[in-house]
Amino acid sequence: MTDAVNTAPVKPDTERVDRIVTALRESKLDALLCSIPSHVLMLTGYWPVMANTVALFTADKAIHLVLPEDEEEIAAQMSVAQRTSFHPGSLSQITTAEKAVAQPLVDLVHSLGLDRFRIGMEWDGSLDPSSYLAQFRYGSMLRDIMQNAFPHGTLLPADDLLNQLSMTKTPQELDHLRCACKIVQTAYEAGSNALQIGLQEPQAAELFRSAFAAAMSRKHPVRADAFFFCMSGENSAKAHAAYARTRERAIEQGDLVMIHCNSHADGYWTDVTRTYTCGEPDAKQQAMRSAIMEARSAALATITSGVAASEVDKAARDVLTDRGFGKSFKHATGHGVCFAAANHDAIPRVHPESTDILETGMTFNIEPAIYIDGYGGMRHCDVVVVTNQGAEVLTEFQSAGLSLELHS
Amino acid sequence: MTDAVNTAPVKPDTERVDRIVTALRESKLDALLCSIPSHVLMLTGYWPVMANTVALFTADKAIHLVLPEDEEEIAAQMSVAQRTSFHPGSLSQITTAEKAVAQPLVDLVHSLGLDRFRIGMEWDGSLDPSSYLAQFRYGSMLRDIMQNAFPHGTLLPADDLLNQLSMTKTPQELDHLRCACKIVQTAYEAGSNALQIGLQEPQAAELFRSAFAAAMSRKHPVRADAFFFCMSGENSAKAHAAYARTRERAIEQGDLVMIHCNSHADGYWTDVTRTYTCGEPDAKQQAMRSAIMEARSAALATITSGVAASEVDKAARDVLTDRGFGKSFKHATGHGVCFAAANHDAIPRVHPESTDILETGMTFNIEPAIYIDGYGGMRHCDVVVVTNQGAEVLTEFQSAGLSLELHS
Repeated sequence: MTDAVNTAPVKPDTERVDRIVTALRESKLDALLCSIPSHVLMLTGYWPVMANTVALFTADKAIHLVLPEDEEEIAAQMSVAQRTSFHPGSLSQITTAEKAVAQPLVDLVHSLGLDRFRIGMEWDGSLDPSSYLAQFRYGSMLRDIMQNAFPHGTLLPADDLLNQLSMTKTPQELDHLRCACKIVQTAYEAGSNALQIGLQEPQAAELFRSAFAAAMSRKHPVRADAFFFCMSGENSAKAHAAYARTRERAIEQGDLVMIHCNSHADGYWTDVTRTYTCGEPDAKQQAMRSAIMEARSAALATITSGVAASEVDKAARDVLTDRGFGKSFKHATGHGVCFAAANHDAIPRVHPESTDILETGMTFNIEPAIYIDGYGGMRHCDVVVVTNQGAEVLTEFQSAGLSLELHS
Repeated sequence: MTDAVNTAPVKPDTERVDRIVTALRESKLDALLCSIPSHVLMLTGYWPVMANTVALFTADKAIHLVLPEDEEEIAAQMSVAQRTSFHPGSLSQITTAEKAVAQPLVDLVHSLGLDRFRIGMEWDGSLDPSSYLAQFRYGSMLRDIMQNAFPHGTLLPADDLLNQLSMTKTPQELDHLRCACKIVQTAYEAGSNALQIGLQEPQAAELFRSAFAAAMSRKHPVRADAFFFCMSGENSAKAHAAYARTRERAIEQGDLVMIHCNSHADGYWTDVTRTYTCGEPDAKQQAMRSAIMEARSAALATITSGVAASEVDKAARDVLTDRGFGKSFKHATGHGVCFAAANHDAIPRVHPESTDILETGMTFNIEPAIYIDGYGGMRHCDVVVVTNQGAEVLTEFQSAGLSLELHS
């Protein structure tokens, strides 16, 4: 986790503000109250560190952060929201975040005249990116605080509304995502140059992470970090699981070497995979490579506003099936990426059973893949955005099955 | 995040099992039902990846994991608990973890004859270590699932019980923590040898992380990762915040260079800080160093079963106050560490206002520190365990203010 001083003044995202206000009015809600970091980011521009920050966004465009004192400086760098701080503990007092946040939050809601509110909140379970090595979870405690303090207020589940708001990004949010993708590109280019036969998977993953650390310090996000994984040889065949695993295995001549990354910059996440061959690809690897790159092209060509996400999945899947790899493509073609990292339920779900329709500004990954048990796997995963001209690939570097000259 | 194949057969932790059974009987509870990874680890030995695994531990010693199919293999390496898997989504169906987990969980509770249960669950907010780059949060959904399926069952908050159970570790858990600390020691020794004047803080932190990746692959935990932070010069004076930040700054001759780490191995977390001087320490740095090492010794000498945790804080604080650094020691002397990483509320709280009494098997950090605004900070943070002979330091390497020969 690395921070840098960002000297550019923070700009309000007026398009985001207008969208939220419109959604609140259509839902007859007075406000949204959130604590999951990705939602706080969308509502205020600030991506909390310890996940105990609460964001309140009202239909009158009052935008507030109730946050721990220690995060004031970093929040000021990222957000124009009004800030009220609390102190979860000091040398003279032991307390918890939920006790410390209650009074300032209740006072804020009072001061805004919202005592008889209809406020939307997070309700259901959700898979969210980690903002730090440890994170606070309010669970149902924020709902309890609000309901106890405001018996005439009505709290409502806003999960669907938040998902809808999150799925299409504003131009300012896309700039953040582009920045995150540029850092990853630099890391992949430098990391792949350093890959060598004989390296253990953990060492290989570490090469890319070191390259990421060097790359991010030139791009100046307030906060950035990356999780790189290396899955080589037969381990790459297992990479269709919901999570990635680096194991202990030395890279060998002839291997497929899959490098997967989820990284963030200022709270905007990427989801990228490249697969390398150790030396010139053999006939099987060439067949896998050309099938994956053709499936990718077919998916990208299908992407445009108004198209069903399931059609994009079908375009990729049909190519892989035609080439004899249909059963080896074991997961969906993609899912929403940006505020989310590894969430297969993030809209749009580019999945055979998806009911989602693509819209301009949606961001997701396209990850055609072939997993052959006992042999190996190849995946090529890009981050794309739907524009008025179709798909724009934000990670346009290194093709699938790129053959590296690996020195042992 | 790196995984290795652990070929040693997993052993049940009979002492942990007995403690939980005793606690359940004393609380007149039929079972504990948890999904926060650190609680699942304590109850079953398995530290979930995506945080959507549910653990059920009954007073009759039935120990069950209801977990996503993708985590079966890794859970089998870590735990002897009975496993029931669910699949949160497939190519033929889009679903969510909370929908997928409901039926197997309800069936399990039925099959155990617990329909009229008194079950303890997580209730309050909590600060928990991140088990993966993204994590599922059930929020209140598990409670809703259970209450809807079992109208005659009683769900009760078990947060205090879980905190009490977590605070003292079994010998088997201590072995895991020792392993985690050994990996960190190797990383610090190798990382500090490579530190150089002129490095940017992110590069310095990366050196230690690379050393960690090399060290962990020799210790064979199933899963391990580390977060290293570098705070140099005047940035080290800000390191008393609730979270660590690496910024963009080059290390200079004469700097204090603080390297902080929270790492995990198989779900057991460390909390370690070392501070280096660039070249020979000057008089001020020598004064800081000797005050911190004496405060540390005073704290360690005070630690024994039955002593108030506040007395340990006082022992360290008195030394620093005597040396004129009282106001510069801006936080508590320590807090629980092992299942927790950066949680200042984890028992025992080694804090002036703590009501906690030390017991054999408690694990926590001792982190005397001096922060001088505009100049720099020095902290020395160890992981310790209370034994029958007093304090055992699990991170006995490199003293505070260790002067490095740094080559520019």
